[in-house]
Amino acid sequence: MAKVTPKIQAGFMELLPAEQILFNKYQKIIQETFEEYGFVPQDTPIVENAEVLFAQIGEDTKKEIYRFSKGDDDLGLRFDLTVPLARYVAMYSNQLTFPFRRYQIGKVYRGERPQKGRFREFYQADIDMIGNGSLSIVNDAEIPAVINKVFDRLQLGKFVIKISNRKILSGLMEDLGIGDKRDEVLRIIDKLEKVGIDTGKQMLIDLNVKAAESERILDFVRIVGTNELILENLRKMEIKNELFNVGVSELSDVITKAMEFGVPKENIQIDLSIARGLSYYTGTVYETVLLDDRVKGSVCGGGRYDNLAESYSNQSFPGVGVSIGLTRLFSQVLSEGVVKTASATPAKVLVVPMEVNMAFALEVAAELRELNVPTELYTEDDKFKKKLTYANKIGVPFVAIIGNDEVMQRKVSLKNMKTGEQKTLSVKEAVGVVVSQQP
Amino acid sequence: MAKVTPKIQAGFMELLPAEQILFNKYQKIIQETFEEYGFVPQDTPIVENAEVLFAQIGEDTKKEIYRFSKGDDDLGLRFDLTVPLARYVAMYSNQLTFPFRRYQIGKVYRGERPQKGRFREFYQADIDMIGNGSLSIVNDAEIPAVINKVFDRLQLGKFVIKISNRKILSGLMEDLGIGDKRDEVLRIIDKLEKVGIDTGKQMLIDLNVKAAESERILDFVRIVGTNELILENLRKMEIKNELFNVGVSELSDVITKAMEFGVPKENIQIDLSIARGLSYYTGTVYETVLLDDRVKGSVCGGGRYDNLAESYSNQSFPGVGVSIGLTRLFSQVLSEGVVKTASATPAKVLVVPMEVNMAFALEVAAELRELNVPTELYTEDDKFKKKLTYANKIGVPFVAIIGNDEVMQRKVSLKNMKTGEQKTLSVKEAVGVVVSQQP
Repeated sequence: MAKVTPKIQAGFMELLPAEQILFNKYQKIIQETFEEYGFVPQDTPIVENAEVLFAQIGEDTKKEIYRFSKGDDDLGLRFDLTVPLARYVAMYSNQLTFPFRRYQIGKVYRGERPQKGRFREFYQADIDMIGNGSLSIVNDAEIPAVINKVFDRLQLGKFVIKISNRKILSGLMEDLGIGDKRDEVLRIIDKLEKVGIDTGKQMLIDLNVKAAESERILDFVRIVGTNELILENLRKMEIKNELFNVGVSELSDVITKAMEFGVPKENIQIDLSIARGLSYYTGTVYETVLLDDRVKGSVCGGGRYDNLAESYSNQSFPGVGVSIGLTRLFSQVLSEGVVKTASATPAKVLVVPMEVNMAFALEVAAELRELNVPTELYTEDDKFKKKLTYANKIGVPFVAIIGNDEVMQRKVSLKNMKTGEQKTLSVKEAVGVVVSQQP
Repeated sequence: MAKVTPKIQAGFMELLPAEQILFNKYQKIIQETFEEYGFVPQDTPIVENAEVLFAQIGEDTKKEIYRFSKGDDDLGLRFDLTVPLARYVAMYSNQLTFPFRRYQIGKVYRGERPQKGRFREFYQADIDMIGNGSLSIVNDAEIPAVINKVFDRLQLGKFVIKISNRKILSGLMEDLGIGDKRDEVLRIIDKLEKVGIDTGKQMLIDLNVKAAESERILDFVRIVGTNELILENLRKMEIKNELFNVGVSELSDVITKAMEFGVPKENIQIDLSIARGLSYYTGTVYETVLLDDRVKGSVCGGGRYDNLAESYSNQSFPGVGVSIGLTRLFSQVLSEGVVKTASATPAKVLVVPMEVNMAFALEVAAELRELNVPTELYTEDDKFKKKLTYANKIGVPFVAIIGNDEVMQRKVSLKNMKTGEQKTLSVKEAVGVVVSQQP
């Protein structure tokens, strides 16, 4: 029979067991933290009606949609978790309780040309709080608290949640008389780190922003200092623009409350260059970066938007949220050696019958599991050496060997695979040793 | 602006918060049980190359594939988790350790005409053990142990794991001289429960199976009794066919070992009519049914196959596995009232500031979370009554009210939303009450 070559598309992350176990550990930390903050789980279809997807999408992204038809239906794979959220909120608004706090961790699809660090199928881990008509600024302050807790627990080294408020830059631009060019200017600012100051200045001039104003904006977004100093600076400017002043006041409020929520001062930093490319952000904006310079770019971004579901509903649903780019983050920390995989099995004990002592081995495996110890049984009739090689390969911490002596005594010989130490113990005693050795 | 109607495709399950929380609870029980038995997590792409999907698929299923192209690529959504497993094993066989025990819980896609209880996007929860060249029969016995533990923990009432071995029926057919019609006869037997005995007999006759042989087969698959009695019956028949006798011996061995693994006698039942439609099963076959007659059909099925990856590899990978149809199961138990949803939030406490006591409320929320109590903060500046209505709607078990008195005392008034009882407590004391009340 002719064989089909087993392969997958480029840009689709697929992991080997030890990698998958590590990935799932991170995913679980994120999920549990989201739930600890009272976010409700959400799981929307991966396939949406094309009409729904295309209602709320930029031109660049349109080309990237996996679009197809089935019967008369025009369909596509979701490209983010925000459009499904907007559709969901509009669709079930009468059955939901607001503020609606939800998280979704799921795969999204972008048919980009594959390149290093870019994925076509990738996980996003999103939280959003959605109000019905209005939503308090307290929510903007809780987002950094959640993100701080998540990255604290992920243990990927130091990180900073960069924060700003779009109203500040927008107000400044109004004050400079270039409010009509706001979105274009924000996009240039968003690219500054990548293109550099000189190119940025040229881009502003190409946009017909005068040299003095360009200078002013570029100086402005590069203001550095402690949060207190930056806020003091902004207030001292005495800019007579309401939007600007509302922005400064909101930013100040969010910083104060985020710290009351327990975010350490050093983990949250005002950065006026944070603009976020997407035009729907209207207030607070966030970007989180790891300080480990092996991990490039933002690992988590988001912000406040005035109206989530405007493509689908006449009601107003203001919200604030962030998205962690989980696949990209994981792929980077793994390939750059920031983290290492460990065991290739969730089992803590591998039960290894020496000869034909299978019946007692089955009982031992059952008893270990009954005592909440994840246990695998070596089922094959192989040489003892091969069984131990298997144990080493999967990286199981303990092996419970069962020979004739053990069957007679109704005990196991528990071997610590790291130290090589071996003791004959009852199953209960073995459980004690295994549990005490857990990392 | 013209609005797009927010809707999803028929046949795609989408849940409201309380339902999603319940669904996730079941999913978590399944996942944790699989890991307790040492199965490694797997997460393959939802999009596969069409060539890979079509290599190992029946004609009926082909029409149901969501197939599409992107650039030059001919793609499709996976329709089960077995084809991706086969492709994965063939692709990474040099990097995997065998026996390879993996689980995958994920969405699969079948573009069927939607009807009650049929989904186009649905979760399957699969376990498989794959050998390289050979795989011990002990694995066939461990599968019912895992399934027994899963359904025990799901608490959906009594259940029975029905079991047989394809070699028995195949051997019988060889003995009757109709071995060439084996697959067709098995398909008829698989449909017997649905179509009834008379139609079944007619179908066999239409297949040119003689009346006496049809009779014999139909009597055979309806043998009932305890496992011991059925096995004794089978041995007494003294059928001189090797396949038949190997099948009986394997079935007997699997039953004995499954019980040694801890499966209670009453939860595993030989049923010779279990044939499973799929032609790739070659030995043990399973089907699990709930005894609650509101839940129709098999909720979990699978079996032993000789060669998993024959479409993709020249190596031989025998395996055994089962699949739980999670979406269909959940949808049935929920719609039939077998289970009820509870809370619409993962939070155990909702912190409710009375007036403008936000600063202390933020601290309380942070402290509760620090003490591992999932906590939500009511952030909006609403009337107190509206805040309590919200608490009732989301079904949170406790509310921590913070008024001026509480701020002065640095305490909270903890209200049990079920009993209405309210006490002024320190945050630590409140945690004690919350933890002691958990279900």
